Amino acid sequence: MRIVAFVLGIGAALTTTVAAAQPLSVAEVGSFHVGGRAVSLSGLPTRDVVFTAGSAPIKVDPNGDFEVEQMYVGFTKLAQPKARYPLLLWHGGGLTGVTWETKPDGKPGWQMFFLRAGHDVYVSDAVERGRASWARYPEIFTSEPLFRTKKQAWEDFRIGAVGSYKLNAAERVALPGQLFPIEAFDQFFKQGVPRWATTDAQTQTAYNELVQKICPCVIIVHSQGGNFGFNAALTAPDKVKALIAIEPSGAPKPEATGGKLKGVPHLIVWGDFIDQSDLWKRFVPASQRYADALRADGGVADWWGLPKLGVSGNGHMLMMDRNSDQIAQMIQKWMAEKGLMR
Amino acid sequence: MRIVAFVLGIGAALTTTVAAAQPLSVAEVGSFHVGGRAVSLSGLPTRDVVFTAGSAPIKVDPNGDFEVEQMYVGFTKLAQPKARYPLLLWHGGGLTGVTWETKPDGKPGWQMFFLRAGHDVYVSDAVERGRASWARYPEIFTSEPLFRTKKQAWEDFRIGAVGSYKLNAAERVALPGQLFPIEAFDQFFKQGVPRWATTDAQTQTAYNELVQKICPCVIIVHSQGGNFGFNAALTAPDKVKALIAIEPSGAPKPEATGGKLKGVPHLIVWGDFIDQSDLWKRFVPASQRYADALRADGGVADWWGLPKLGVSGNGHMLMMDRNSDQIAQMIQKWMAEKGLMR
Repeated sequence: MRIVAFVLGIGAALTTTVAAAQPLSVAEVGSFHVGGRAVSLSGLPTRDVVFTAGSAPIKVDPNGDFEVEQMYVGFTKLAQPKARYPLLLWHGGGLTGVTWETKPDGKPGWQMFFLRAGHDVYVSDAVERGRASWARYPEIFTSEPLFRTKKQAWEDFRIGAVGSYKLNAAERVALPGQLFPIEAFDQFFKQGVPRWATTDAQTQTAYNELVQKICPCVIIVHSQGGNFGFNAALTAPDKVKALIAIEPSGAPKPEATGGKLKGVPHLIVWGDFIDQSDLWKRFVPASQRYADALRADGGVADWWGLPKLGVSGNGHMLMMDRNSDQIAQMIQKWMAEKGLMR
Repeated sequence: MRIVAFVLGIGAALTTTVAAAQPLSVAEVGSFHVGGRAVSLSGLPTRDVVFTAGSAPIKVDPNGDFEVEQMYVGFTKLAQPKARYPLLLWHGGGLTGVTWETKPDGKPGWQMFFLRAGHDVYVSDAVERGRASWARYPEIFTSEPLFRTKKQAWEDFRIGAVGSYKLNAAERVALPGQLFPIEAFDQFFKQGVPRWATTDAQTQTAYNELVQKICPCVIIVHSQGGNFGFNAALTAPDKVKALIAIEPSGAPKPEATGGKLKGVPHLIVWGDFIDQSDLWKRFVPASQRYADALRADGGVADWWGLPKLGVSGNGHMLMMDRNSDQIAQMIQKWMAEKGLMR
């Protein structure tokens, strides 16, 4: 594992602060759905549904034609982008593109940061969640959805230690030095959506179609999005100009690289408190082995353990932490060094 | 029923065309969740879930603490809005805020139109759908979700006559003069989301909280959003400066107005082909009676049957039709006449 030394330039920090006061010059705000397929259901029994309490049930026929497994992509295009390629932001599991928008504490998130830094920004909702919609189960999605609990998020996202979650927000104690705005934890939780354990292949297919539609591009992925991003780059190494994986929960097997990604710089970023989480201690090695394989191929795979770079206190949702702009600025500098800005 | 005569000014149309080429000066793009409540589930049995095909099932405990019944609101704030109040866009049933974004044929929708016209625009996803998320049923939402079929959308949205829907897109024949881009019908259908018949009260509560959070404002509602909008204005007549209801599928009882809305101008807009749809012939009278009651109170309730104003060919999704800008421009002119622009 190679550690990349990093010093945040004072000049760059000042530039960002000044830019924050200026309006953005925006060519278009919009969205589209991409991918998916037509499905027809037949032979299912009609169901009696009560539409209004107290009124007679109405027969509902679930059979018919549908569109399923598409994904949603919202975009903000600048009049004069300074980045060479659009920037795609791919969220993690049980979440949507809201991950990248305004932070739960009401402050601007990475969507605004990277717009201000001069990128056209595409924020998507993957198959099964948010504005991508979801399909009837078990007829189309083959399993039932899973609903993350607050306790799971509190612990799995390394906001508090295992066992420290309390229903009463006032009684919750975060990990020492934790930079997540814990007063906004319940607000953050409103961003959560149900997830399925059986839609990975459909999701990868839709992401690959997205890459074909709007890339060349740079992609920032988070958590569950890591695997989708790594695989998207393997599928279209000519289209993905850089991949930045924030705490990827998995990675392809090292032998998958096959020398195809020498021209696709990768950056993998990890926050703090990994050594206190059995979950993440188990998840980190896959991306380590994958980064090693990329470098063995002669490619670029930079690995940032933030505490070793002097940046402490970040959990899994680091794009929402109090120092989120600092980390975004580090990534922005990396992108500039890789020749991704004009 | 009073018909309001309308002539589209050539000058206004030219202004819009010129403005379309200019970038927007945007202060902030962002989002938030509003409303909802904490819910704790207990006593439910654990379930065996297979996460990866072929691997052993893992026990999943559905009990725990959740946030439910919140709604999602995305916003684009201009550096120098020309409108006095922000503009809120509320979608219809089985849909999300995507209704107002880029149209299924890839052309800009009403979100962009009203941004260019100088409004801060808030596009929301109501409770149960899109980025608002949805809650476990039947434990929290008390019924099962409903999935609209393509046939239902094709017929109920007055794109084609009852009986004219075909699975094969090439065989679909629209109503004569229909302005929906039928080549993009399947693309439109990807915007659909499951709906519940039992979440109206929770949805109204969240909309009312939204109004308290960000109004004074002007609200444009569509279809199922009509009732939510009418009731939001009744609940906060000091906060809602105008209500524009596009094909509202219902309205409060006339006696509900209670003289409270004299200062809140209402505009109700209906498209074409109503007389060919038993569904809409049944739905129109509620908003007619409600508009009559508003006027009897001494308030403003303008009623536009678009064909009588010389605008033909619009179905239920008129904000996606080929002449969507024309209708938006008529509404923009109405807002200006009502003193809602600076």
